Amino acid sequence: RKKPLSVRVADGRIVKGLAGVTTPLAVAQSLRLKGVLVSKVNGELQELGRPLDSDCELQLLGFDTAEGKQTAWRTGACVLGGVLEGHFGAVVCREGTSEFGLFSDFILDKKHKEEWEKEQAELRRRDHRRIGTDQELFFFNEVSPGSCFFLPKGAHIYNTLTDFIKSEYRARGFTEVVTPTLYSTALWERSGHWEHYSDNMFTVTSEGSQTYALKPMNCPAHCLMFEQRVRSWRELPMRWADFGALHRNELSGALGGLTRVRRFCQDDAHIFCAPEQLEEEIVSCLDFVRKVYQVFGFSFHCLLSTRPTPCLGEAEQWDNAEQQLMRGLEQFGERWDLNPGDGAFYGPKIDIQIKDAIGRQHQCATIQLDFQLPIRFDLHYVGPVMIHRAVLGSLERMIAILAENFGGKWPLWLSPVQVLVIPVGGNNESYGREVVRQFHEAGFMVDMNDDQSGTLNKKIRSAQLAQYNYIFVVGDKECESGTVSVRSRGGKQLGRRPTEEVLMSLTLLKNTRSNQDEF
Amino acid sequence: RKKPLSVRVADGRIVKGLAGVTTPLAVAQSLRLKGVLVSKVNGELQELGRPLDSDCELQLLGFDTAEGKQTAWRTGACVLGGVLEGHFGAVVCREGTSEFGLFSDFILDKKHKEEWEKEQAELRRRDHRRIGTDQELFFFNEVSPGSCFFLPKGAHIYNTLTDFIKSEYRARGFTEVVTPTLYSTALWERSGHWEHYSDNMFTVTSEGSQTYALKPMNCPAHCLMFEQRVRSWRELPMRWADFGALHRNELSGALGGLTRVRRFCQDDAHIFCAPEQLEEEIVSCLDFVRKVYQVFGFSFHCLLSTRPTPCLGEAEQWDNAEQQLMRGLEQFGERWDLNPGDGAFYGPKIDIQIKDAIGRQHQCATIQLDFQLPIRFDLHYVGPVMIHRAVLGSLERMIAILAENFGGKWPLWLSPVQVLVIPVGGNNESYGREVVRQFHEAGFMVDMNDDQSGTLNKKIRSAQLAQYNYIFVVGDKECESGTVSVRSRGGKQLGRRPTEEVLMSLTLLKNTRSNQDEF
Repeated sequence: RKKPLSVRVADGRIVKGLAGVTTPLAVAQSLRLKGVLVSKVNGELQELGRPLDSDCELQLLGFDTAEGKQTAWRTGACVLGGVLEGHFGAVVCREGTSEFGLFSDFILDKKHKEEWEKEQAELRRRDHRRIGTDQELFFFNEVSPGSCFFLPKGAHIYNTLTDFIKSEYRARGFTEVVTPTLYSTALWERSGHWEHYSDNMFTVTSEGSQTYALKPMNCPAHCLMFEQRVRSWRELPMRWADFGALHRNELSGALGGLTRVRRFCQDDAHIFCAPEQLEEEIVSCLDFVRKVYQVFGFSFHCLLSTRPTPCLGEAEQWDNAEQQLMRGLEQFGERWDLNPGDGAFYGPKIDIQIKDAIGRQHQCATIQLDFQLPIRFDLHYVGPVMIHRAVLGSLERMIAILAENFGGKWPLWLSPVQVLVIPVGGNNESYGREVVRQFHEAGFMVDMNDDQSGTLNKKIRSAQLAQYNYIFVVGDKECESGTVSVRSRGGKQLGRRPTEEVLMSLTLLKNTRSNQDEF
Repeated sequence: RKKPLSVRVADGRIVKGLAGVTTPLAVAQSLRLKGVLVSKVNGELQELGRPLDSDCELQLLGFDTAEGKQTAWRTGACVLGGVLEGHFGAVVCREGTSEFGLFSDFILDKKHKEEWEKEQAELRRRDHRRIGTDQELFFFNEVSPGSCFFLPKGAHIYNTLTDFIKSEYRARGFTEVVTPTLYSTALWERSGHWEHYSDNMFTVTSEGSQTYALKPMNCPAHCLMFEQRVRSWRELPMRWADFGALHRNELSGALGGLTRVRRFCQDDAHIFCAPEQLEEEIVSCLDFVRKVYQVFGFSFHCLLSTRPTPCLGEAEQWDNAEQQLMRGLEQFGERWDLNPGDGAFYGPKIDIQIKDAIGRQHQCATIQLDFQLPIRFDLHYVGPVMIHRAVLGSLERMIAILAENFGGKWPLWLSPVQVLVIPVGGNNESYGREVVRQFHEAGFMVDMNDDQSGTLNKKIRSAQLAQYNYIFVVGDKECESGTVSVRSRGGKQLGRRPTEEVLMSLTLLKNTRSNQDEF
């Protein structure tokens, strides 16, 4: 027999139901509430179709809340044929239909429905999978489910992001290391991953009974490097970065585009520092995050998660570290919130939430303290604290976020198609090729449209659709005067200018990773 | 009962023996020949201890031949506790002893023995495993046999080599791609690798019966990319480069240092071109090889291997391609030899043999034509030829070769320890730090020795042993005048010079990848 329960709705009303039967959706229906998209049960997000377990406080959230909007977007994206990464865990959508069938007239009122439809069109336009195909950035193939094939243009974006992070590494005292892909289970047992994470690891059996697993993360390899010889306190902090490919055995049903993959790289680094160096390291990690997000144009805020129950380690160590994290956040001076009791069992963490161009939130960067791995790996002498941190997070997922954030209109420095040269007539082709050569040598992604058929206007239009940042038209006047007639992707005419001058201006825009179009 | 056989020795003498019993060593002993190190049976290299199978022509080669010398070196290296890569296939040495026990007084006469011992000492000094440990470049760990852990300094060399190749890629019209690590066996069956190579592949089972294998090479992935959409002849040639990690399941007994590993990266690229573009592509591949080897200071020669029996494909296609390869080699103008009938069954190839600083030969670069993969992958329309090519070959192995070639004295551009600043006294430290900052910002690997104990001479000596390319001593005079007193690694004093001037000179040496020490 089902147990009765009592639900206290946010406006104070009480609704009676049955444990394991009554859903938030049923409560909304009984109250004749429309436009409800997701709920919070005792403050925790929960989809509408999942039955309630016990007496609770219930919030019913519509399109006018951030959570409701995000659910509509995500679930809408599902309806359009795929699954985006779920932030709430349990939302599962099947092809072509949402599990809860929420998007009926009954739930969304007319005004919200129009808004929702407009935003769905915007989402379709921005969908990174569509951009990936249209711009020939990447594709997937059933021979390797969840692993992306990056075509030359996609690999350009991939490498440009990596180079950006590498240049910051150099300035910020990180050094790169290169580590193996396969490790025997002995290592994963030692690190604790085998116990907690083996279901998500791909295993390989070799030479009799020896089992190896593809690494799902780099930290144990870095611990091995640390313990490889006796370390002196003078060497701390050590900051080791690793772009090694990681594999996690996600269920094939959960795979979708670049947001949930089986193979990915992170801009992953581990910092080994003395406990008293924590605050300074945290501030500089946060500064790293700010530098990168400013370039992308993302606003962000930080979320400090503190000691959960149960947890490992001594209370004093936790308290001390959390104090330093808070002082670091204060010193950093950006908005931050506290998420008490939500840290990992091995240490407190700071998650950084970004907001993209259309207001969606993502969590990519993270800074996690780890008291446990150094103990498991016997990295004593003073017992360094280990900080796991990443700014981009998974490169694959960040490329998806950026593709959708920019709607395929990549800023110059990231763009795989930076300049297109269009000669007006056949006699301008050799000059056009000379311009291409100059820009190519200066490191630009530059092409020429020397197709003899088609009008100039058609070529310009198709170059804009292909998302070339700049279009150079070169006719007789340009040839004679060593100039190019520049148009921006948006169609703005920037006039006829000396080629050398344009080269210098664009080089400056590229090197400063500017978002500016005009120059 | 054993069958009798007849051996015709190079000087015309005939020796009788038994098939499967008589060895080249026994023949040498019966003829009282001393100093024999390896043999050629019907022109093929064969170690002395392996019995002869049938009537043959036998050459007995001593230390005065390239083959004999190489055997002595390699076998010597084995005696010292490990296995170097075998070029002849079957030479297997066990720890501490050579299988054939050849290095007795009986075989090597006194003069050769002394020469051999001298060279052994030189080899010990240059052993890349010793250099790797001494300079903290890399290490191996039993949790991942045959996979190297590159520490920051080793990763610096690794990345510098990669960056060098990438800069050439850009200049030579190659574009990078990024491809998955795991592929289902369906792909390997299609490419033919499953049939011929599956013993060497690591396999992973996931979701029921689906089997995946870690890629041992990139070519099938690039074929998938090619067939991903219809290609036009105007797109050819397409040159796709991939630094993806490759795995090959070598037996653990065969693993040794960086020369035989299970995980490695290649500077691998595949060129899809029309048959009539072959000659031009071959010449530019060869030019790429020359450019890189000139920088390393390697001399080299090319070896063209032509149609074997049996082989796949039409004779006309082979003849046509071989003609183009020969014309390409002639046009290239370096020394080349013909190795008739020794091509792969899928196409002819050019191997490039390098000679290192101590005269040892290695084969790293290769240019292989492939008529078969495009057919297996249905890459029709005109049927492109596929060229597999690599210049460095395996980065891991090239790092071993370079370490031994330079004997740990890395040229400036590759060096993980380029500059050491030594302040004379405590009051020169802040100036020293300023010099460090300047060089670090300009992209140099620069350290400071601010240890208060120890004499200046001791610090200089230890910096030289650590293989710093340049040592800057900064005392009061240098502080006042904005100069540094420069010493080269070899101990040559280059005088007191303005810091700015030194920075510019070293930047020039680095950017031109010069081998020059003085400036």
